[in-house]
Amino acid sequence: MSKNKTERARLSVSRRQRSTPFTPRIETLGVSDYSIVNHTILPKGFGRSVEEDYWHLREHVQMWDVSCQRQVEIKGPDAALLLQRMTPRDLRDVQPGQCMYAPIIDEHAGMLNDPVILILDYDHFWLSIADSDLLLWTKGLAVAYGLNVEIDEPDVSPLAVQGPRADDLVAKVFGDAVRSIRFFKFEKLDFDGHELVVARTGYSRQGGFEIYLNDSSLGLALWDALWDAGENLNVAPGSPNLIERVEGGLLSYGNEMTRKNNPIECGLGHFCSYASELDYIGKEALSRIHLQGPQRIIRGVRFDGDKTPACANTWKLTVDDEFAGQITTAIWSPRFNQNVALGMLEQAYWNPGQVVNVHCADGSVRDGFVTELPMQP
Amino acid sequence: MSKNKTERARLSVSRRQRSTPFTPRIETLGVSDYSIVNHTILPKGFGRSVEEDYWHLREHVQMWDVSCQRQVEIKGPDAALLLQRMTPRDLRDVQPGQCMYAPIIDEHAGMLNDPVILILDYDHFWLSIADSDLLLWTKGLAVAYGLNVEIDEPDVSPLAVQGPRADDLVAKVFGDAVRSIRFFKFEKLDFDGHELVVARTGYSRQGGFEIYLNDSSLGLALWDALWDAGENLNVAPGSPNLIERVEGGLLSYGNEMTRKNNPIECGLGHFCSYASELDYIGKEALSRIHLQGPQRIIRGVRFDGDKTPACANTWKLTVDDEFAGQITTAIWSPRFNQNVALGMLEQAYWNPGQVVNVHCADGSVRDGFVTELPMQP
Repeated sequence: MSKNKTERARLSVSRRQRSTPFTPRIETLGVSDYSIVNHTILPKGFGRSVEEDYWHLREHVQMWDVSCQRQVEIKGPDAALLLQRMTPRDLRDVQPGQCMYAPIIDEHAGMLNDPVILILDYDHFWLSIADSDLLLWTKGLAVAYGLNVEIDEPDVSPLAVQGPRADDLVAKVFGDAVRSIRFFKFEKLDFDGHELVVARTGYSRQGGFEIYLNDSSLGLALWDALWDAGENLNVAPGSPNLIERVEGGLLSYGNEMTRKNNPIECGLGHFCSYASELDYIGKEALSRIHLQGPQRIIRGVRFDGDKTPACANTWKLTVDDEFAGQITTAIWSPRFNQNVALGMLEQAYWNPGQVVNVHCADGSVRDGFVTELPMQP
Repeated sequence: MSKNKTERARLSVSRRQRSTPFTPRIETLGVSDYSIVNHTILPKGFGRSVEEDYWHLREHVQMWDVSCQRQVEIKGPDAALLLQRMTPRDLRDVQPGQCMYAPIIDEHAGMLNDPVILILDYDHFWLSIADSDLLLWTKGLAVAYGLNVEIDEPDVSPLAVQGPRADDLVAKVFGDAVRSIRFFKFEKLDFDGHELVVARTGYSRQGGFEIYLNDSSLGLALWDALWDAGENLNVAPGSPNLIERVEGGLLSYGNEMTRKNNPIECGLGHFCSYASELDYIGKEALSRIHLQGPQRIIRGVRFDGDKTPACANTWKLTVDDEFAGQITTAIWSPRFNQNVALGMLEQAYWNPGQVVNVHCADGSVRDGFVTELPMQP
């Protein structure tokens, strides 16, 4: 995976790698790079550089086809009980209209996913998931526990509008009501006679919304309405931007963490409760880690040298030839004029400012240092 | 997804889309097309056409990096009990050394995966899986049932050697013992002091083996040993070949069937048992379908006209303007000099010889007819 851009392999086409309700527009707009998330294509580039997309995202507004954030729908009398068993986050006081970022863990406290949970009602939830088939874990638990719930993947496809002009763009389609939606809250708003969930969420630090299209047949109408509304706002097609998310410390399941990592290592300890009233899978294992403290934690790393190659595998970090951790994602930051990365730092080396050596896949060893997240210039 | 080959988007690079122990060799050999299966890259082409690869596979021998066929390992006192709960296939008489193709179904008898199960011992199994996180279903069941099992994804990466010269090639590395391995059986054979599972299985109808590398650090040594052994056998890098698998009626989970399909529809009814001693998830739902008979079934379809575009979505089939089913995979067959396809045919139209209209994504409507599987020339 060390090839340069012009040599990279193309993605083969099949039904298994699912298209989205927005795919025809994405293709017309010249999509050049795809990723696969949840068996669904995620547009990752449109022929411009990641740096150009980065500056545009910070200054204007972009539309992202994030339909790959599939929903695991849980509803019914036992829905709240099942959901609380799946996460260490205390969900006892949630209210409809809230979005809750929540680690989902297994019996060893290993991360299985890190969805945003949409509280549609007290007995009705959507888990807007990262890249693992959380549907199967959820269904397996429900079947074996014998719970009274319905679990499915509904016809719901999120479309993100991100960037400083997102309010102006989305207000043109959904009305000024969107301006008063608070962070991690949602409203159900009308589009062409259909009620859509509009949430102030998104996988960037530039602000904006995710609109949960709930009828694939309206995909092109929704895309076109938003696109037309963006005409004077310099709207562009975009995607989760690697530079922006690394600087911002936004984690990616499968990149920064896997089932081998617990939420405390992932810096998600503040989402975990050990209240005696809560009964969740992995509580015993997680409580032990909580008491002992983690052995490693996710941090930022900045490092010198030429523009880094893409990180297709973990790269070793060392301090005085001792193992100090691993890089999981790396890219050049034009704002910091330096390479920026996310990685897992061992306890002895995790303090911000710690000097480290970064062993890149191209064989180079670069000088770097540990940073807090989000990174500060 | 209707673009032609030179316009198709490239696959973006990240740790989440996992490399394999064979990736460095695959890249040196000029991989041009990737797919993603189980969060792992699957090489799909090496700059030659699918037709060239097809003829080569039928006449010579190929090495395929199918590490994406990840293993779900189940072991421990309750392993056999759990495994039997997961499948309608009767596993009571299995013996170590057997490979068992088995549908895995949910409580509605919907297909979750269709692995080949390797019986390593009476309490130790590998499920060599298609493209869904069956690990999560398996773990969810085990946790909620409270079973005494260990479940994990081990460091095991299958390498397939397929084609009429596969015996000659593999015998040069593992000895003539491989020639006597029967179909869907495996032996543990020595490679460089390590015992590897060598199974007479694979995702083609041309014969061959799958070698289960159980230590990533040996990946390049194994690849090189096999590659060198193939020097006088016209060995080439390859991949599951779309023409060959469609003609041969080999199904692909996510393409031909999803969770919305039951195993009887998928033509897997002969793998399903309704014996009263068996207790598996979905038995009630499956028994009902078994008694009533399926509403539709997977068949082959051959159709006329120019070379078909790739099938990125389902394509409608009609008879006299009535809905008759859907195509799920389609490609040009140079041997039949016609397009060949797999699809789900409704009951009234599923008889071989039935004439149908195929509504391709390019807007064309082609004349076709239904066939048995595997297809006969």
